[in-house]
Amino acid sequence: MNTTPLWRAVAAEFLGTGLLVAIIVGSGIAAQRLSPSETGLQLLENSTATAFGLAVLILIFQTVSGSHFNPVVTLADRALGAEARPLGIVTYIAAQILGGIGGAVLANLMFAVPTMISSKDRISTGHLLGEVVATAGLLLLIFALVRSGRTALVGPAVGAYIGAAYWFTSSTSFANPAVTIGRIFTDTFAGIAPISAAAYLGAQLVGAAVGVGLVFLFFPPVRKAFA
Amino acid sequence: MNTTPLWRAVAAEFLGTGLLVAIIVGSGIAAQRLSPSETGLQLLENSTATAFGLAVLILIFQTVSGSHFNPVVTLADRALGAEARPLGIVTYIAAQILGGIGGAVLANLMFAVPTMISSKDRISTGHLLGEVVATAGLLLLIFALVRSGRTALVGPAVGAYIGAAYWFTSSTSFANPAVTIGRIFTDTFAGIAPISAAAYLGAQLVGAAVGVGLVFLFFPPVRKAFA
Amino acid sequence: MNTTPLWRAVAAEFLGTGLLVAIIVGSGIAAQRLSPSETGLQLLENSTATAFGLAVLILIFQTVSGSHFNPVVTLADRALGAEARPLGIVTYIAAQILGGIGGAVLANLMFAVPTMISSKDRISTGHLLGEVVATAGLLLLIFALVRSGRTALVGPAVGAYIGAAYWFTSSTSFANPAVTIGRIFTDTFAGIAPISAAAYLGAQLVGAAVGVGLVFLFFPPVRKAFA
Amino acid sequence: MNTTPLWRAVAAEFLGTGLLVAIIVGSGIAAQRLSPSETGLQLLENSTATAFGLAVLILIFQTVSGSHFNPVVTLADRALGAEARPLGIVTYIAAQILGGIGGAVLANLMFAVPTMISSKDRISTGHLLGEVVATAGLLLLIFALVRSGRTALVGPAVGAYIGAAYWFTSSTSFANPAVTIGRIFTDTFAGIAPISAAAYLGAQLVGAAVGVGLVFLFFPPVRKAFA
Repeated sequence: MNTTPLWRAVAAEFLGTGLLVAIIVGSGIAAQRLSPSETGLQLLENSTATAFGLAVLILIFQTVSGSHFNPVVTLADRALGAEARPLGIVTYIAAQILGGIGGAVLANLMFAVPTMISSKDRISTGHLLGEVVATAGLLLLIFALVRSGRTALVGPAVGAYIGAAYWFTSSTSFANPAVTIGRIFTDTFAGIAPISAAAYLGAQLVGAAVGVGLVFLFFPPVRKAFA
Repeated sequence: MNTTPLWRAVAAEFLGTGLLVAIIVGSGIAAQRLSPSETGLQLLENSTATAFGLAVLILIFQTVSGSHFNPVVTLADRALGAEARPLGIVTYIAAQILGGIGGAVLANLMFAVPTMISSKDRISTGHLLGEVVATAGLLLLIFALVRSGRTALVGPAVGAYIGAAYWFTSSTSFANPAVTIGRIFTDTFAGIAPISAAAYLGAQLVGAAVGVGLVFLFFPPVRKAFA
Repeated sequence: MNTTPLWRAVAAEFLGTGLLVAIIVGSGIAAQRLSPSETGLQLLENSTATAFGLAVLILIFQTVSGSHFNPVVTLADRALGAEARPLGIVTYIAAQILGGIGGAVLANLMFAVPTMISSKDRISTGHLLGEVVATAGLLLLIFALVRSGRTALVGPAVGAYIGAAYWFTSSTSFANPAVTIGRIFTDTFAGIAPISAAAYLGAQLVGAAVGVGLVFLFFPPVRKAFA
Repeated sequence: MNTTPLWRAVAAEFLGTGLLVAIIVGSGIAAQRLSPSETGLQLLENSTATAFGLAVLILIFQTVSGSHFNPVVTLADRALGAEARPLGIVTYIAAQILGGIGGAVLANLMFAVPTMISSKDRISTGHLLGEVVATAGLLLLIFALVRSGRTALVGPAVGAYIGAAYWFTSSTSFANPAVTIGRIFTDTFAGIAPISAAAYLGAQLVGAAVGVGLVFLFFPPVRKAFA
């Protein structure tokens, strides 16, 4: 059905994930600089920019690659029955991770900040639970819309979800391994130290499993009459 | 018409109401911590996260359970003529209340806050009038859209409504008995003391009656030619 | 075409305009109380709540009365060729003004504020120019959408317009005689003194004339082949 | 296909670009006055008003002129294959620039600020890179939607994009030569000194070339079977 050449879809995943991380990191730096003494306002500026920007990025690339920008979305898509193209999953995930790193570097360059490994420790039991919830909710949302024929709503809905999840999960909702890895490469507001990133990745995989389970529970595939 | 098994719809009401309360309580705790000296900014952070999150939750479960997440919506739906399934109303409301409590506990866990009964007194004549207005407006909105064939707009419209009602009603618009009960179980920004909650429930029931009356007034059922 | 009984449409205009003013005045009081030392934040809270709430109110009553809630919209609708029902214009405008006053009183009650005539002087040359621009832009937006077959977008678009116009017009964009009159009846954040209100009404009528002219210029009625 | 007379389309570009600059400049002045000590909050107020206002302006004039409001959009449209009308490109761009200047003057008048050349230096390597990214992203977004048959989404999507780009690009995302020139004519929050403006124009042209290249890469024109 999807006749886009794989190279183009993979390039879309690279650029889309890159711009997503550039939005998160860049707006985080701007927020930190412009509202230096107000951490709440910083997060509101960061979350508003990310909600708007993510919605737009999904719209841009949706007809090209499906706008996954997230390894757990790519994996869940396969687990939930999408036919994968040869090399599709591997190249998607590689492009997402490289894009995520590139996006952090781009934001650093725009704001004249050196690219350094983040020293920001973000681990706590509550935060890891937050990542499980954030990731499960993200997958449930995406596949609820897809399986009920409302794919056109995925962009604005995922943007709004992340706008909320920045606030209601204690971890500020990374919910994306490629973005988490990318955010290691900036020692600014949105950065995350490598050890924290590793723990977040684990929590995200758990959340992904929970999310896929919820999709199976609430949105079982329609059984065909003669299959 | 609705062929979803009842257990699945009830589970959707449980999870949806739970996540709604987790969003309200969780974003309230985050706002309180990050903007400690700015109560207005706290409420703006809390209301923005709730508006986005509620819109998304309604989208997720709309095809499964109708996304009531609110006993007065379930009761109004019946009063306005929806055919109830056996046990449907009772199980919906029970799931909403249990979900609401579970959501408060989940938020407490994510933010490493003990689950305690709230001590926050929220009663005043103005606040109770606010709850009447908030609940009546919510029902009028939902059934105006449903009765004019725009059910697909319920999610974003209800999210926007609550985003406004946090501010224009003096009570910050609970407008939902299950959410009100859930919010007893957190002694944080979004909490409510049990006695206040009881008074709010009463006001919400009055508001529900007003709202159903307004729906009858403005959106009378279409009369069929041969009925 | 419109088969709604006039009494129901007029009641919708009364309630819709009333709730609009309750939203503006109520969120203004909440903003003033919660962010006492931050006038910018007060206006952001007020404008965000109004943008969301106005969009929702238009959605609610659009199929009942057309959701004018504004005498200059009712007048422009007629000037631009809508067939008026006998007594339609007079009763619409009366209902809008009474609703506007009622909405201010309702907000005062919810926030336990006495209903008093506002003492807030808002006149300046720049502010009156702001009202001309705000009103002209509002009418251009509404009828651009109506005349290009996108009436369903009026709710969210007008909400977004007002969300912007609070900020880019120096007057914070009243742009509505009924709302202006209603806002006389609260001596709080959103109030306006009677003399200022009179001047604003004049500017709004000028803006309405400009707006109708722009609609004629940019969206001429489609000529029928045999008319 | 487009049967709008050229004069009307050009007038729409003049008025639309003018109102866009009035929104940017006017909300900037309001933000500066109301939140004098909070630069982050100023930008949030300015970006929120612009996101809402730009979305609305695009909706208003989309059926009249295509709502370019931006010389690089007009040029990219041609480069990507739109058939230009005689004089179309020249008159569009002239109208956009004159409108941009007029919009700054209008905002100055509304806020009783003298029209003066801005003294605000905005040049840095990072800022110019920001303009390249902002402009390329803007064009990619617009033509992704147009080429995939989602032109109706351009208004809200471009509004959301700019709402994000204010924050994630270090330059606050001018991304528009006509707006950049207009903003020279106000010595307020949103102003830009002429030398900075010249450098921004150069960066925007580079960004436009990048953006057009990305559109070719990701959204190649559909080949017709017998062409």
